[in-house]
This record gives sequence, C-alpha cells and structure tokens, in this order.
Amino acid sequence: MERFPAVTLKLPDWIDEIARPGEIFVSQEERMRFVISLAARNIERGTGGPFGAAVFEVATGALIAPGVNIVVPQSCSVAHAEALALMVAQKMLGTFDLGAPGMPRMELITTAQPCIQCFGNVWWSGIKRLVTGASTQQTEAIAGFSEGPVPLDWAVLLRDRKPSIEVIEGVLADEACQVLQRYKESGGYIYNPDNA
Amino acid sequence: MERFPAVTLKLPDWIDEIARPGEIFVSQEERMRFVISLAARNIERGTGGPFGAAVFEVATGALIAPGVNIVVPQSCSVAHAEALALMVAQKMLGTFDLGAPGMPRMELITTAQPCIQCFGNVWWSGIKRLVTGASTQQTEAIAGFSEGPVPLDWAVLLRDRKPSIEVIEGVLADEACQVLQRYKESGGYIYNPDNA
Repeated sequence: MERFPAVTLKLPDWIDEIARPGEIFVSQEERMRFVISLAARNIERGTGGPFGAAVFEVATGALIAPGVNIVVPQSCSVAHAEALALMVAQKMLGTFDLGAPGMPRMELITTAQPCIQCFGNVWWSGIKRLVTGASTQQTEAIAGFSEGPVPLDWAVLLRDRKPSIEVIEGVLADEACQVLQRYKESGGYIYNPDNA
Repeated sequence: MERFPAVTLKLPDWIDEIARPGEIFVSQEERMRFVISLAARNIERGTGGPFGAAVFEVATGALIAPGVNIVVPQSCSVAHAEALALMVAQKMLGTFDLGAPGMPRMELITTAQPCIQCFGNVWWSGIKRLVTGASTQQTEAIAGFSEGPVPLDWAVLLRDRKPSIEVIEGVLADEACQVLQRYKESGGYIYNPDNA
C-alpha cells in the first residue's frame, strides 16, 4: 500500500563549507553580513530564493543554525529562510521552544522583514529578539515578492507579546536590498504571487 | 566537522493504518470527521497535540495528505497539523504550489481555525478553499491554546486574496470541540503559551 512520505528539508551542501555550529559572530552587523552572504550565495548556486536567516545566541553571538529559502527546489511553500533557521535550530537543540527555561536568549537575524508566514513562525519559536534587514516595502518594491497581510503593527505585536520579542529593524538594509536587486536583474523567479 | 542537520518531519505510523493516498471522502462532513479522528487518535497515541488537518481535491474528495500536530514529540514549533498536511501534500505532488496551473482545486480541512502561523502557511500554499471546525474563541476557551495575533478579518483577507481562497467555517464544530475538551480533561500539555 502506498504510504504518506516524510518531509525532509535540507540546507544546501555549500552551507557546511562556509559555516559551522557554534561559530562566533560578535556584532549585530557581522551576524547580518553573514545572513546576507547566505542569501547571495543561495542565488549564485541556484539553490533557492534571495533570502537568508540565522539563529544566534544573543549574548555570545554563537551561530546555532543558518537558513535559506528553499521553497522552489525542495517543493515546499513553508521552507522560507526564517522557517529553516528556526527548525534547524530546534533540531540542533532538541526542543520546539528556543525560549525554554534555562536556555540562553536566542535571536533570529533575517535579511528581510518577515512575511505573514514567517511572522507566525517567529511568534511560536521561542526567540527573544528579531533583527531585520530590508523592509517589506523594499522587498516588495525591489524584487516584486509579496509578503502577504502582515499586520501593520507587527513589530509592536511582537514587543507586546508575553514573553516579549524585541525587534531591531533595518540593520545593513542597503546591503540586504542589493541582493534582492541582483536577483531581480538576473531574472530571478518570483514564485507564489498573491496578486494574480 | 559538525554539520547542520536536515529536518525530517514524519507523520505518526498509525496514519498509514487508517488512511491511504487517494481515498475518497465524498461530503464536507466526511472529510471533517476524518480530520477530527486524526486529532483524537493523535491524543490517544500520544503522538502530538489535539489538532488534525488534511488536503483534499475539492471536486472528487480524494485525500492528498493528512496532517497532525507533532510540535512536541518532533521538537518543531512549525509542525502544526495544517503545516504537515500542506507539506506532505506538496511532497506527494512534487510542487510548492498546490494551485499551480493544471492542478485540480485543492482544499485544506482543519479541526480548528488557523493560528497566526497556519494562516501564513495557508496564504502561500496554493489551496483554493479552507474549511474549519472549532473557532479560535472555542480553541482558546476550551483548551487554553493561544492562536496568536490572527487578523480579525482573516477570512475576508483570504477571500479577497488574488487568487481567492474560499473559507467555510464551523463544520462539525461541536465534534471538533469535544476533542479539545477531552485533551483538556486528560491534563494535556498546553505548549508555547504567549501569555506567560
């Protein structure tokens, strides 16, 4: 009898060539530059969309897990960069809650403001801080991607959540936008339109 | 060198004992009764939370993929029932877009109104219809689960999306609520509180 398959989501092989678990990224800018490099390489290698993200320990800057968008090559609309980083981090640490008692504070750094799906991923992930690069306006204007009906007060909602999720916006936004611009200019595929 | 692991999400083994790909569920109620039975069995077997979902072909009622909540046992906050059903369906059909040109219309049937994360999953999945059982008010009141900051006009947003996602609410809501009630009474674990 045919069975229902398991779903396996796998980061591209090149990620293990450029990063390792526990690697230290001291400053916020270093962390953001790393996730922007993930987005750039993901385009160059043809392994997915122009988005990168990673979970770090806030205090030490230790890399817990990177993520890139693998929606198209791995046939999964859930597989945005943020979701991958969060899922791989939870797998590494053996918990569904990155904010579980006794854990160090974790943050998600992402090249672009979360779409409606990633906003929901963040909400339940247990991270204590979210750091973004390009704004939704930039992502939609430059590359033509849609972010869906994210509440206008998304950052306030995260900050007012209990426990709270701190939000820092616009870190290295220009560099994050450049990757989107390159993707657009190279004729990159804009999947999942919601304005057809 | 330590590497970053792949993430594998696997439906509980008992699912293959009670359902097979392509099985026909003629009416809306039959489809909802099936996903409620998934939620109930998921509690009984201790394989996850009290939520079930499935993707069906709208016209034929053919089951494409079932899903249950496996957040806690599989250490993944993304692994809500709706996400599983959508990811397994996309894997079965080899596409990230269940609404791709030439595909039959697909629907997601779910025992409870989507949380903020599942709302985002639905938005990008390609399904053309969403059918819900218990309302958010019921889920939060009966079982103590939170659904997060879902927009109040979530159903309107889905209907007004282009392409549109039709919404049918409250199918067999009483039966869906009974599963939540049993979970609550059995002392079921309410994970991921956002009101700590």
